[in-house]
Amino acid sequence: MNHIGRLFQLSIYGESHGGAVGVVVDGIKPGIKLDKEDFNKDLTRRKSGSIGTTPRIEPDDVIIDSGVFNGYTTGAPISLRFLNTNTKSKDYSNLVKHPRPSHADYVANVKYDGFNDYRGGGHFSGRLTLGIVSAGVIAKKMLEGVEFKTTITNLGGETDKSKFQDILKKCVDDNDSVGGIIEVRVNNLPVGLGEPYFDSCESVISHLLFSIGGIKGVEFGIGFDGVDLYGSSYNDMIIDNTGKCKTNNNGGINGGITNGNEMVIRVAVKPTPSIGKPQDTFNFEHNMIEELKIEGRHDAAIILRAMVVVENAIAIGLADLKLINDALKKNV
Amino acid sequence: MNHIGRLFQLSIYGESHGGAVGVVVDGIKPGIKLDKEDFNKDLTRRKSGSIGTTPRIEPDDVIIDSGVFNGYTTGAPISLRFLNTNTKSKDYSNLVKHPRPSHADYVANVKYDGFNDYRGGGHFSGRLTLGIVSAGVIAKKMLEGVEFKTTITNLGGETDKSKFQDILKKCVDDNDSVGGIIEVRVNNLPVGLGEPYFDSCESVISHLLFSIGGIKGVEFGIGFDGVDLYGSSYNDMIIDNTGKCKTNNNGGINGGITNGNEMVIRVAVKPTPSIGKPQDTFNFEHNMIEELKIEGRHDAAIILRAMVVVENAIAIGLADLKLINDALKKNV
Amino acid sequence: MNHIGRLFQLSIYGESHGGAVGVVVDGIKPGIKLDKEDFNKDLTRRKSGSIGTTPRIEPDDVIIDSGVFNGYTTGAPISLRFLNTNTKSKDYSNLVKHPRPSHADYVANVKYDGFNDYRGGGHFSGRLTLGIVSAGVIAKKMLEGVEFKTTITNLGGETDKSKFQDILKKCVDDNDSVGGIIEVRVNNLPVGLGEPYFDSCESVISHLLFSIGGIKGVEFGIGFDGVDLYGSSYNDMIIDNTGKCKTNNNGGINGGITNGNEMVIRVAVKPTPSIGKPQDTFNFEHNMIEELKIEGRHDAAIILRAMVVVENAIAIGLADLKLINDALKKNV
Amino acid sequence: MNHIGRLFQLSIYGESHGGAVGVVVDGIKPGIKLDKEDFNKDLTRRKSGSIGTTPRIEPDDVIIDSGVFNGYTTGAPISLRFLNTNTKSKDYSNLVKHPRPSHADYVANVKYDGFNDYRGGGHFSGRLTLGIVSAGVIAKKMLEGVEFKTTITNLGGETDKSKFQDILKKCVDDNDSVGGIIEVRVNNLPVGLGEPYFDSCESVISHLLFSIGGIKGVEFGIGFDGVDLYGSSYNDMIIDNTGKCKTNNNGGINGGITNGNEMVIRVAVKPTPSIGKPQDTFNFEHNMIEELKIEGRHDAAIILRAMVVVENAIAIGLADLKLINDALKKNV
Repeated sequence: MNHIGRLFQLSIYGESHGGAVGVVVDGIKPGIKLDKEDFNKDLTRRKSGSIGTTPRIEPDDVIIDSGVFNGYTTGAPISLRFLNTNTKSKDYSNLVKHPRPSHADYVANVKYDGFNDYRGGGHFSGRLTLGIVSAGVIAKKMLEGVEFKTTITNLGGETDKSKFQDILKKCVDDNDSVGGIIEVRVNNLPVGLGEPYFDSCESVISHLLFSIGGIKGVEFGIGFDGVDLYGSSYNDMIIDNTGKCKTNNNGGINGGITNGNEMVIRVAVKPTPSIGKPQDTFNFEHNMIEELKIEGRHDAAIILRAMVVVENAIAIGLADLKLINDALKKNV
Repeated sequence: MNHIGRLFQLSIYGESHGGAVGVVVDGIKPGIKLDKEDFNKDLTRRKSGSIGTTPRIEPDDVIIDSGVFNGYTTGAPISLRFLNTNTKSKDYSNLVKHPRPSHADYVANVKYDGFNDYRGGGHFSGRLTLGIVSAGVIAKKMLEGVEFKTTITNLGGETDKSKFQDILKKCVDDNDSVGGIIEVRVNNLPVGLGEPYFDSCESVISHLLFSIGGIKGVEFGIGFDGVDLYGSSYNDMIIDNTGKCKTNNNGGINGGITNGNEMVIRVAVKPTPSIGKPQDTFNFEHNMIEELKIEGRHDAAIILRAMVVVENAIAIGLADLKLINDALKKNV
Repeated sequence: MNHIGRLFQLSIYGESHGGAVGVVVDGIKPGIKLDKEDFNKDLTRRKSGSIGTTPRIEPDDVIIDSGVFNGYTTGAPISLRFLNTNTKSKDYSNLVKHPRPSHADYVANVKYDGFNDYRGGGHFSGRLTLGIVSAGVIAKKMLEGVEFKTTITNLGGETDKSKFQDILKKCVDDNDSVGGIIEVRVNNLPVGLGEPYFDSCESVISHLLFSIGGIKGVEFGIGFDGVDLYGSSYNDMIIDNTGKCKTNNNGGINGGITNGNEMVIRVAVKPTPSIGKPQDTFNFEHNMIEELKIEGRHDAAIILRAMVVVENAIAIGLADLKLINDALKKNV
Repeated sequence: MNHIGRLFQLSIYGESHGGAVGVVVDGIKPGIKLDKEDFNKDLTRRKSGSIGTTPRIEPDDVIIDSGVFNGYTTGAPISLRFLNTNTKSKDYSNLVKHPRPSHADYVANVKYDGFNDYRGGGHFSGRLTLGIVSAGVIAKKMLEGVEFKTTITNLGGETDKSKFQDILKKCVDDNDSVGGIIEVRVNNLPVGLGEPYFDSCESVISHLLFSIGGIKGVEFGIGFDGVDLYGSSYNDMIIDNTGKCKTNNNGGINGGITNGNEMVIRVAVKPTPSIGKPQDTFNFEHNMIEELKIEGRHDAAIILRAMVVVENAIAIGLADLKLINDALKKNV
């Protein structure tokens, strides 16, 4: 349930207000240069700080408990851990009686019969994505030469990037939030990653992406817009002996397998469900609809911090598919 | 790679022109009434026949090799097999030299170093979906009371269903093809299906859906259109003590777990890549771009036959999640 | 449950008196020469016929439904199927009321609430081992150069092989049965197969071996007899730079990983539980102990036919471990 | 590789001289009372201290990083961690050049191309069993009412327990070591745990047991000694309508499934490979056989500390099988 991967494997754990969140990563080749500093860039990208992100600042220093020796991976599992240092001891029990809409509060309470750690979202907290980001750093090291370009192509319905700051400012002012679309373009992938049927590139990558809170849509290549095209326009004609295509409506994947063209993935991120604006929603203690005012300040646009999470989730899937493909290649 | 599921499990095999295609289904409760006739309805829905579908007619009678005794499931794996009877012995080797665009021909040839069975798409053939459809019939039996409604909401960019026949006819006349959007609505699901992180409803279901050839997008609830909404509009306010919501932008899933509201899933199906229209694409033997004319007749709109495949893939995921949820419930 | 393997994977299905038994094998490299004749040798070794084996003769011709094209593996899953042709239509329902001791009859009836196929042992039948044997044939092809030597070192307590025929004859005459010990020696394995912790050679191999009916003990190297030795005698001193050891008490495995010396595995096979001799055991219909006389003739020494099953189960485990080790090797 | 389990899952990590060793446990029902004190009993049983055990004393206090809230399990994964506090900073690099016989030193160096953490056995250290012991504590909580009795039935070839102290003393005096046989008897198991074929009780349990360092044999019931019996003596006659048997040669398991009788498991533990006595073994730097003198003091009989590891590994397997069996029971 909190584990994924066939060879390159992750086990995620933690809660927002517990001792730590972390991930155990397995299936790592030995001899890869790796130290704490390698995580800084992506962890910083995930951090809050800019307009539209929560002011809860945690140092988020990675603690490497195993699997690295003398600056190189050993081949044994790497345990990566992050302390929860900024856990305010306020009372969250009202979230059980008066669950936040669009959050996991209600379903978690039912599913776990009231035993779930509800503080700050508990195991459903966005802090769990620290594990994805840091495991993704290792995955990228396994994908030498592969390049990721990640952008926001739509924020709150707006596609003109020059207007994004205005939208964020308006959200903060209104105690509201926005979602948007993240696009990841992956280059320098070989032909052949992805396995027929259940380990197709799209299957493995979407599985990882949809485990990230707030992701409600995933598409490859032209995706949903492809419905406007007839087959004769949609089909990507091959134009040279490397498999390069004239168009890239398939987003670099045919039959679930990379075709050597740019991989294109877009994900829909819903607006941050926690907003400062009061909302009318059910209070299970009072058995009636009541206004809920969520205290504290929150990310007006979690999408800003989700960019690196999405990118690294994709890297994790590709690292696993690369190992599988390497293992099953014809003997020469 | 051709296996999926934690408890309710599938192993898929077969090629378009081999002896048979089939699936081994495991993790089935004993004592479920099941016989060959139970498969007819969904297998018929998958069959070609209507306008826009291929005239290759196979009887597609299911052969049950194991796991059913005296009309009931035994608890042992059920092997379901379909003979390939309509395999014309024509020469397909040109697909290796002159691969069809948007198909797996090229990537399969590279990945398997030329050893793949290329006849009729081989292991990448749509015939493999017989396994998904028939396993889904069993999955639905494990989901007593759950209801599926599956429709096409968009065909070739058109959303007015009264015009669908015209579009299909035009495609057939033009030797072209169209894609579209399939929407599945699932009702009567309990609260609590889906596990945190990697076994979220969206993860498990998208994994299955993206293993179906031609699916290039999956979204839940309002999906990609949700980017136009601010959080205050997007959030689904709970209105009673059963968890019922005023809106359903989250499509019945919060934090990866069913919330008791209708589950809503939409998938983008690309236009059938095989079209009669000539296409300019690379010929690897002649090392130049040449016109490719795909012989025979094909589905102008594979989406028509994909409806039941999509629906049953979803049922398979839900059946597995139900077993997991049942197993991990608090002891009473 | 009926599936195993990380990359080289098996899904087993079938019952003694159903339509067929079989296995779907996945994770096979493309380009391996394979045809029906390749299975004959090992299938013949599994067949009954010699003294001490059942006279139920089935042709046991393998049917290859997928994954092989033009005499070579394609990289897609291979479905191997065996028809059940010799299923006498006698009444087996007495086994439900009066279960055979040391058989699965009683536990299957409880576990599956009476819905299990009880005819001839159903899913627990030894016929299921056809899948292990035939999958093992493919595994051996993935293990080029590796050699297996399999012998019976103990039959009914006797270790002098010249007396085995007498023991078998006595068993047949007495309507009784014997067990024994099978020893497999594997040579030409590289150093490095097996993964730390849960994918140790011993773990993976014992898991497969104990899935075979009637196996009640597995040991590696000197095994249980090693308790008589002090560490200074037990330890295998390395004597050259290839890792060759003076002794081989560890049976070619250290820390779960092959060390390049001969792998030595022994398994204890219990006496065939079905015997002609009358036995006093509980009759659940009459609610009292009653004499049970098992009709028909049976293997007096199933161990004879188990030899190739054991050998091939080991090959299956090693093939998977080889793929994993190949995938996770340091990049050069 | 370092992960196991279908529903009740473990991910193990750590090295002897790294920051910590630990385990992430998933698939735990919510609402189980659990706190740090629950681990003390079994962790103490694993500790060194008595004659024959190493004097390296670590506090081995468990740190619970997640999954427990207000003294109860939440349903989320539980991360259990143990600090490595007693890691002397001596030079272990000689183990690379002059590997200890019967240890993983040599194979790890080859497999990981020299990048493995060789200090104190690294990832192959017995400290990793802290994860098994502590996960087993949780497993036992999932197995309410089930009872485990674990004894040493053979120490260094001796079965008279009154002589065990003499053997241990002699080993310590001689700088040598002994192995032996651990027997675990499990009572109050229901009929029906274990799945056909690859999830048989014996398969799942042996897989876990053989992942423990130094285990070289596993047998169930009468095990290897059963070869001396004819079928008519071996078969366990059922004597009442609860399935109770007159004898228990099958050790409580038929067809891989519990039959309600006592489960009996024995494992062969090899003598601790690290001994103080000098040993002649290969020095890869000098390319010749040389005397190796292993510094420090070691467990003369690791079997003493292995008892609780073996017991808890069995509990882990049974907890997983119980969840699976619960999930797949016929609906009532």
